[in-house]
Amino acid sequence: MPHLAPNSLNGDISVKSKMTEDDSAVLALRNFIFDICNQNGGGHGGSAIGMAAIGVALYKYVMRYNPSDPEWFDRDRFVLSNGHTAMFLYALNHLTGFDNFSMDEIKGYGSAKLNGFTTICHAHPEIEVPGVEVTTGPLGQGIANAVGLAIASKNLAGKFNKPGHDIVQSRIYCMTGDGCLMEGVALEAISLAGSLQLDNLVLLYDNNQVTCDGPLDWINTEDVNAKMRASGWHVLDIEDGSYDVPSIVIALEYAKSIKGKPVFINIRTVIGLGTQVAGTYKAHHGAFDLASIEASKRLAGQDPAITHVIPPAQLAYFRERKASGEAIQKDWNSLVENYTTTYPALGEELSQRRSGSYGTEWLDILKGIDVTQFKGAATRDVNGAIIDKLWAAYPALCGGGADLVNSNKFPYVESDVFHSSVGSSAGRYIRYGIREHAMAAVSNGLAAYNPGTFLPLTATFFIFYIYAAPGVRMGALSHLPVIHCATHDSFAEGQNGPTHQPVEVDSLYRAMPNLNYIRPANAEETIGAWIIALGNKSKPTMLSLARDPVGDIPGTDRFKVAKGAYVVIDIADAQLTLVSCGTNLHYVVTAAQRLSASGVPTRVVSAPSFDHFDQQHRDYQATVFPLDGTPVVSVEEYIATTWARYTTASIGMTGYGYSASNPSNYERFGLDANGIEKRVRKYLHDLGGSNARMTGWRQL
Amino acid sequence: MPHLAPNSLNGDISVKSKMTEDDSAVLALRNFIFDICNQNGGGHGGSAIGMAAIGVALYKYVMRYNPSDPEWFDRDRFVLSNGHTAMFLYALNHLTGFDNFSMDEIKGYGSAKLNGFTTICHAHPEIEVPGVEVTTGPLGQGIANAVGLAIASKNLAGKFNKPGHDIVQSRIYCMTGDGCLMEGVALEAISLAGSLQLDNLVLLYDNNQVTCDGPLDWINTEDVNAKMRASGWHVLDIEDGSYDVPSIVIALEYAKSIKGKPVFINIRTVIGLGTQVAGTYKAHHGAFDLASIEASKRLAGQDPAITHVIPPAQLAYFRERKASGEAIQKDWNSLVENYTTTYPALGEELSQRRSGSYGTEWLDILKGIDVTQFKGAATRDVNGAIIDKLWAAYPALCGGGADLVNSNKFPYVESDVFHSSVGSSAGRYIRYGIREHAMAAVSNGLAAYNPGTFLPLTATFFIFYIYAAPGVRMGALSHLPVIHCATHDSFAEGQNGPTHQPVEVDSLYRAMPNLNYIRPANAEETIGAWIIALGNKSKPTMLSLARDPVGDIPGTDRFKVAKGAYVVIDIADAQLTLVSCGTNLHYVVTAAQRLSASGVPTRVVSAPSFDHFDQQHRDYQATVFPLDGTPVVSVEEYIATTWARYTTASIGMTGYGYSASNPSNYERFGLDANGIEKRVRKYLHDLGGSNARMTGWRQL
Repeated sequence: MPHLAPNSLNGDISVKSKMTEDDSAVLALRNFIFDICNQNGGGHGGSAIGMAAIGVALYKYVMRYNPSDPEWFDRDRFVLSNGHTAMFLYALNHLTGFDNFSMDEIKGYGSAKLNGFTTICHAHPEIEVPGVEVTTGPLGQGIANAVGLAIASKNLAGKFNKPGHDIVQSRIYCMTGDGCLMEGVALEAISLAGSLQLDNLVLLYDNNQVTCDGPLDWINTEDVNAKMRASGWHVLDIEDGSYDVPSIVIALEYAKSIKGKPVFINIRTVIGLGTQVAGTYKAHHGAFDLASIEASKRLAGQDPAITHVIPPAQLAYFRERKASGEAIQKDWNSLVENYTTTYPALGEELSQRRSGSYGTEWLDILKGIDVTQFKGAATRDVNGAIIDKLWAAYPALCGGGADLVNSNKFPYVESDVFHSSVGSSAGRYIRYGIREHAMAAVSNGLAAYNPGTFLPLTATFFIFYIYAAPGVRMGALSHLPVIHCATHDSFAEGQNGPTHQPVEVDSLYRAMPNLNYIRPANAEETIGAWIIALGNKSKPTMLSLARDPVGDIPGTDRFKVAKGAYVVIDIADAQLTLVSCGTNLHYVVTAAQRLSASGVPTRVVSAPSFDHFDQQHRDYQATVFPLDGTPVVSVEEYIATTWARYTTASIGMTGYGYSASNPSNYERFGLDANGIEKRVRKYLHDLGGSNARMTGWRQL
Repeated sequence: MPHLAPNSLNGDISVKSKMTEDDSAVLALRNFIFDICNQNGGGHGGSAIGMAAIGVALYKYVMRYNPSDPEWFDRDRFVLSNGHTAMFLYALNHLTGFDNFSMDEIKGYGSAKLNGFTTICHAHPEIEVPGVEVTTGPLGQGIANAVGLAIASKNLAGKFNKPGHDIVQSRIYCMTGDGCLMEGVALEAISLAGSLQLDNLVLLYDNNQVTCDGPLDWINTEDVNAKMRASGWHVLDIEDGSYDVPSIVIALEYAKSIKGKPVFINIRTVIGLGTQVAGTYKAHHGAFDLASIEASKRLAGQDPAITHVIPPAQLAYFRERKASGEAIQKDWNSLVENYTTTYPALGEELSQRRSGSYGTEWLDILKGIDVTQFKGAATRDVNGAIIDKLWAAYPALCGGGADLVNSNKFPYVESDVFHSSVGSSAGRYIRYGIREHAMAAVSNGLAAYNPGTFLPLTATFFIFYIYAAPGVRMGALSHLPVIHCATHDSFAEGQNGPTHQPVEVDSLYRAMPNLNYIRPANAEETIGAWIIALGNKSKPTMLSLARDPVGDIPGTDRFKVAKGAYVVIDIADAQLTLVSCGTNLHYVVTAAQRLSASGVPTRVVSAPSFDHFDQQHRDYQATVFPLDGTPVVSVEEYIATTWARYTTASIGMTGYGYSASNPSNYERFGLDANGIEKRVRKYLHDLGGSNARMTGWRQL
């Protein structure tokens, strides 16, 4: 029963009956959030205030976690998908006793941060901070991350749990507002979660019916409960989410009993509750009126003149979770100890997965692969074979594709398919469906479960990674190692035409910080790319792979891929350097051989990774791309401007592709050996022997 | 009643009773599709075959269109969202008599297209071809395009229709497979269509329960009908969509009577019907077995040895639509004539909207704007003011934002909000909700309705255009003029942090062919950007706009924006050129002034549009960026590599941003005037007077 009554909106707070401990806690949290919002004049406090009772239910009663060890392996995970309400999380972390969330840090929220001042209380939660599970803010991503975390927990439980030894029990709680539920990435993830029957996932909907611009029904009139049920979710309703902690707790406890379905709890709240802008879009952002705050503090018995002080009783109420969390973790530690004795092999494997260290077998495998078996193979085929070879040796590998895996050549066996239903939750191959964006964001959730426990793979055509881009970006920003297998990265993608030919997608991924975009030319370099990818513990990798076989390329070296670019054909008294990568390199080799044979000594450079090359010393860089004024020309079937930092001229695309066969298109766009040779010769002729660096970069 | 029976799968075709005319037509269409699939050994024929009865219902009985004039203004629009089934559309266009879809063109489908051979029958439908409404292929886009087309038709009807004069009646039919319905962009658009009550829109679901990788229930188990109902759609079911033309026709006719809801028709079909791979993923792509084709042709009384010949009775059955289409259009022409007499002003306005020509008033307005009113204004504010000034003079303008319009400063009045309900369908301001991807794709549909009739605007933060990227790309590829207003394009976006700070999004949009990305520095250049944007009839524009006021910048010129880059501060005997744009330019001006004052004569270039600069003559380019070996340094708070084609060194970002205030971040990342000056001085020192072009491009 609620004791703070719903008529206490708009600053007119009244008490129907004696407040319970929970009521007081809700009020204390709300007052704390007021202080945080007003300390620097802003922030997205309205929703955080409305969600206070939900926070109390979760952090006081429902979640298994240990504030003294935010990284405890089997903790329940809380994802704040509506990340703009960050202070909701910060306030609860402080109240329950996460040491890093000191009051000083909290006070930094919203400050100008001049003169080098920093705080862990960023405008949006950032994963680097213990107590924050994933970075959120761009709407919808958090819901998909939560689906990934739920798959992770299900998968570990399926693999490791034994009767009497429920080593992995972690449940995933995700908070969402109206906004996330409109985003495509969330809608994809919701559909996936229902299909996978992720019954360890609870999505709590802060249903305040207000968005940035105005009332929700201006832009969305759907029946959200019916939609969630249709998507395979169990739906629970909370009519009074502003005050009624016991009902929220009951719903959350009941949710634990639901089998075979994720649970959606639709909780009616009031944005900016108890303030003069309550229930309106004006409560979305900014400071709140002092009269309302004063009334709220008086109701709690707090001195309105004092900020950032939690009443002792309420602080004790929350801080109790520190001791209880420590006890929970201690019990779990004993359980693991006992488990390891009973099941030593599994215990060791669990320990390995927890550590995220998988020895060097994977490296030995990659070093040892004889590429003669891949003569003439497309890099997508090589990639598939590598995944197959590594799958057993690197147990963190998991994932799959977005309904094109036969084309991506992503290997799997039916018995290894992940599904929540009994007997298959230990499967590591994930069917994402035609949901590229969710695939990337779910993978981030898998990687975020615990460092190194999962190394997720994704797969689709390169062009469709433009659908996944916001998810890939969040993974890169969050330092989450995921390996994206982007196949069909060229004209040679089966005549699908310009809708499927990625002429500019590389420009995005080559510019994306902390993402390693690698475009290997053949089997040898694909192996090198995997050596890099598996060596990365804090960044995602995108492998740009070809659909069609490549011709012979001399001089490629798996160990030089890490140099980013290196000479594959050297020649005395070179007058010209050609550089390329991926599907384009073998055409360049042919063109170079012809040029050299006809009196233009031509070097060839393979450049699979700009990221790695940019990290090399300038002296090395100058050995690859000479600064003596001789021409350096790149060749790639993408927009060429990414190469301008290295070259004096570039051959590339200036528009979209064309629906035609592979040889036809390379000829059409002057990117076969003939076209390259012809354009280079014209460039050399136009230069007439003048210094190429002094004439400015040219698009040929 | 179906006469071809459902047991006729798997090549075992039998006839229960005498075939009707419709049955024969379905069979003829299917046999034609077999020929198209097998003529060059491939294509995505399985779904096209399964959809044959749907095609007959639409093209023979339901749609209002004129094969003799594919661009007739009031035609019903058909969108093939599952664009890989392109031959479905091509076959129907040929059968009903679209002159351009000759049998010779059809025979080109899937050919290698060597030696310059071309065909209009691309692997995916392309908008440039009359008879194709929008380019489709990347899944989900077509559904969102159809929503845009439906808004367009509703809006025109609301504006122009009068009692007895239903000038605009066009209805939108969109075909979807399982794939589109899983894509986030489609899910966003579906939710939007339900909320907007677009009852002129019908989505036909080719429910064959098979995707590329296998059975649909491997990846999706949702109750699609319940989900569509929850989203505000009216749902109809067709149990036998493989054969039952009359039932499909009845459903489509009934759909016309539904008010206030778009209609979803769930039609059960069989992929690859009548072949040995029927009902399996193997039917998705490739040629079909000859035995099945032979049986199918015999059933139709066709000689199996003959391909690409339509039996005369069936050809006549379809071709009748050519005469009836001409008659429908003739009646409509009379109606318009009568309308123009009765309502001369509206008639003239209709004529203008049909022509897509809006005179020069808009240009006069833009030329005449006095920028002193915008002193110190942020470009987002200027942009909003420009939209406000142009709204009446340019009646094709329409659109809105994705729930951030108060921040985008997108102006609107409540009475101008578009909604399907009575009295408000003439509104031009569209509330997209938090659906960035759908916003872009819906805008493409609006622009595709008829050339120039609509000029859609979109608005959100620049960072969230990464969510919209696949839609923006399709618009650029399709030559559709849409103006994207991307605000908050810098650190100065309100402390939201790296999740909201776009350091690499420009790299994508600057590389995207046929998209005009413009980053104006101040009010003067924002006006120039609009002059370009409204002058573009065949490409979208993205305006990159700042949240915060800019400092004074001398020398900017609205008419020089079209040069792409131009000198704003010149100086005698310059030793250095600094170039920048947007929010960064005013810091550069200050740094340049200090450098000049202290003995380093420094020029400043404003470069709002790379696209336009790259189109200038090399002689002009050399006057902007000297090739004499003096340093040219760019400054921008994005990844700097896009500038390398013009500069000898660049100051930019190498990682993500930081959650902090505007001045704090510009200082933190060395991008305020002090930071710029310091880094430039170090560069000059390192160069030690040597030729900057000969030392290779540097990231400072």
